[in-house]
Amino acid sequence: MIYLDHSATTPVKPEALQAAWPWLTSEFGNPSSTHELGNRAALALEEARKTAGKFFNVRASEIIFTSGGTESDNLAIIGLALANPRGKHIVSARSEHEAVLSAIDFLQRVHGFEITWLALDEFGQVSNFEAALRPDTTLVSLMVANNEIGTSHDIKTLAEAAHRVGALFHTDAVQAVGWFDLDLKKIGVDALSISGHKFGAPKGSGLLVLRSGAHAEPLLHGGGQESGLRSGTENVAWAVAIATSLESLAPADSEAKRVSKLRDEFIEQVLSRISNAKLTGHPIKRSPNIASFTLEGVSGEAVLLELERRGVIVSSGSACAAGSDEPSHVLLSIGLQPEVAQTAVRFSFSHETTAKELIEAASSLVESVKVFI
Amino acid sequence: MIYLDHSATTPVKPEALQAAWPWLTSEFGNPSSTHELGNRAALALEEARKTAGKFFNVRASEIIFTSGGTESDNLAIIGLALANPRGKHIVSARSEHEAVLSAIDFLQRVHGFEITWLALDEFGQVSNFEAALRPDTTLVSLMVANNEIGTSHDIKTLAEAAHRVGALFHTDAVQAVGWFDLDLKKIGVDALSISGHKFGAPKGSGLLVLRSGAHAEPLLHGGGQESGLRSGTENVAWAVAIATSLESLAPADSEAKRVSKLRDEFIEQVLSRISNAKLTGHPIKRSPNIASFTLEGVSGEAVLLELERRGVIVSSGSACAAGSDEPSHVLLSIGLQPEVAQTAVRFSFSHETTAKELIEAASSLVESVKVFI
Repeated sequence: MIYLDHSATTPVKPEALQAAWPWLTSEFGNPSSTHELGNRAALALEEARKTAGKFFNVRASEIIFTSGGTESDNLAIIGLALANPRGKHIVSARSEHEAVLSAIDFLQRVHGFEITWLALDEFGQVSNFEAALRPDTTLVSLMVANNEIGTSHDIKTLAEAAHRVGALFHTDAVQAVGWFDLDLKKIGVDALSISGHKFGAPKGSGLLVLRSGAHAEPLLHGGGQESGLRSGTENVAWAVAIATSLESLAPADSEAKRVSKLRDEFIEQVLSRISNAKLTGHPIKRSPNIASFTLEGVSGEAVLLELERRGVIVSSGSACAAGSDEPSHVLLSIGLQPEVAQTAVRFSFSHETTAKELIEAASSLVESVKVFI
Repeated sequence: MIYLDHSATTPVKPEALQAAWPWLTSEFGNPSSTHELGNRAALALEEARKTAGKFFNVRASEIIFTSGGTESDNLAIIGLALANPRGKHIVSARSEHEAVLSAIDFLQRVHGFEITWLALDEFGQVSNFEAALRPDTTLVSLMVANNEIGTSHDIKTLAEAAHRVGALFHTDAVQAVGWFDLDLKKIGVDALSISGHKFGAPKGSGLLVLRSGAHAEPLLHGGGQESGLRSGTENVAWAVAIATSLESLAPADSEAKRVSKLRDEFIEQVLSRISNAKLTGHPIKRSPNIASFTLEGVSGEAVLLELERRGVIVSSGSACAAGSDEPSHVLLSIGLQPEVAQTAVRFSFSHETTAKELIEAASSLVESVKVFI
């Protein structure tokens, strides 16, 4: 099997599971308990928090462990918007992840927020950003890299512009971990969401980096865990797992270079051998590990099945919307017609993906498309 | 070590971890993916849902997997209150878990709900319930059994009264799993919260039973997983673990009888040998696995440390409020003075707790208290 659906989910790294193991077995204490068993759990949690903090170059206290990317996005967007007295205006783009779009929709529907959706070019890049900012803009939410088409944003520049008018900036970095430099001091965002199961930690692990001083209304109210921002008995094992997984990542810069080269060779193979294939997303400003194509005239879902028969596991669109066979909202947002959007096939790589696998995958794609032409 | 702090958290059952194992290793698919790896994960999730549904005698579709008890309580209370157009009035009691109290506080603070706090007698039972219900009562939230003093409510009767005036009824059953009959058809509530780590599933697992037809606004918005009520890639492994753990529980009725007898012998030992010990909670209407005492004149925290030195692990108050050394809000709610509340020591048992352990624990408590008198 050649698994090229890492943007949907990726296997748990053995070292992450191994580090979590004691906290699933003998070390079962509740971190809020005052006895030794509880204290050891609390210490493990704080160690994990420090490790995660180091990865993002922030203080441990700026890490909030959550149950995943969707929770992190919701906590950042709803939490910051409700706690920020500046106004009720949000700036974002239709190409964002469903978790971001739906959290914003909730703010509009229930709390009367006003939304400015940024214009997107055919590559998925936002335009007229500064013109969208207003004196009452509470929050901007734009992702580091898109989960379907791979297009990346220059977050640093966008965040600076948002800060100039006094707005907060959140970024969904779920697809960026391991591929982009997420040093918070460099990119300068107020909040950054990640999901463990996209880079070798288990499903159900996640965290939000929340800049110290940024006030947020919690989503989960209760015992006051995670500095009062995320109540509930802490999932110590998954906190340890996500920290271990972050720690074990190779430096993003060198990995980005190395894998971008593999990606470009793969794209070249596909485009030169399949005449109706067209790359989606930006040709250069893009994630190293995603290559998605439209295959005009051929159903993406059908190609996916043909590829699977050949042992190549990919995705048509994203796996982030439960049981949906609607055309991808991301592809529609960059101007594709629904019937074209439904021809999309996404290949997404891990740090272990090899050149050989990608050569095989390209050939399998050629064969799979031939079935229908 | 004699661990008698099972109401804080309990070890993960080997069978729960074993059942989860494939979903943490080779079977790593995203349930929303349309390829086989994803389909198998989706099937496992639905099997887990069926198993959990059977436990509560509800349809699989009435089970919503969450990240724990706090999330379940918040989703039920905030979700039902915001989606119910009936009014903005909630009925509850100050002895509820922090997750319930704080979710209600959020509704009051941010959404303008009005709250009626029921009067509590010295045993922690609510009174004048029907008088508190109003034509605009949206929701009642009362727990099955209290996590600190063990007092149980007759949920069936209370829910019937709430339904007579058209209000919805939520119950926090976090401490009740394995000890009380939670057949939804019998107790007749609209929503019921549980937390996995209180009965042998891992921390970070939980679920909400939500009666079909009860509308709720989600807390986590996004890809529409869990029938749109709880978005985010599903934590398949922990869904399997919590279902396995529920399935492996011995029948609550017989366990309740068996362990209540052990508990009563333990209470008798403690009360007959320690003159300043006083049982908290109701003498009869109580959870089989909790016995908490005030020890007037002696610090509960100090006794906890003495007990720990003797190998007996208990709790002073609950472990549900992070790093708090405030006197228990539950004990204050039943009329205890703060200085008395701070003398409390809680013993909480599992299904594996033995008579021999409890005899030892009682003796250790006698010795521990002697240190201070």
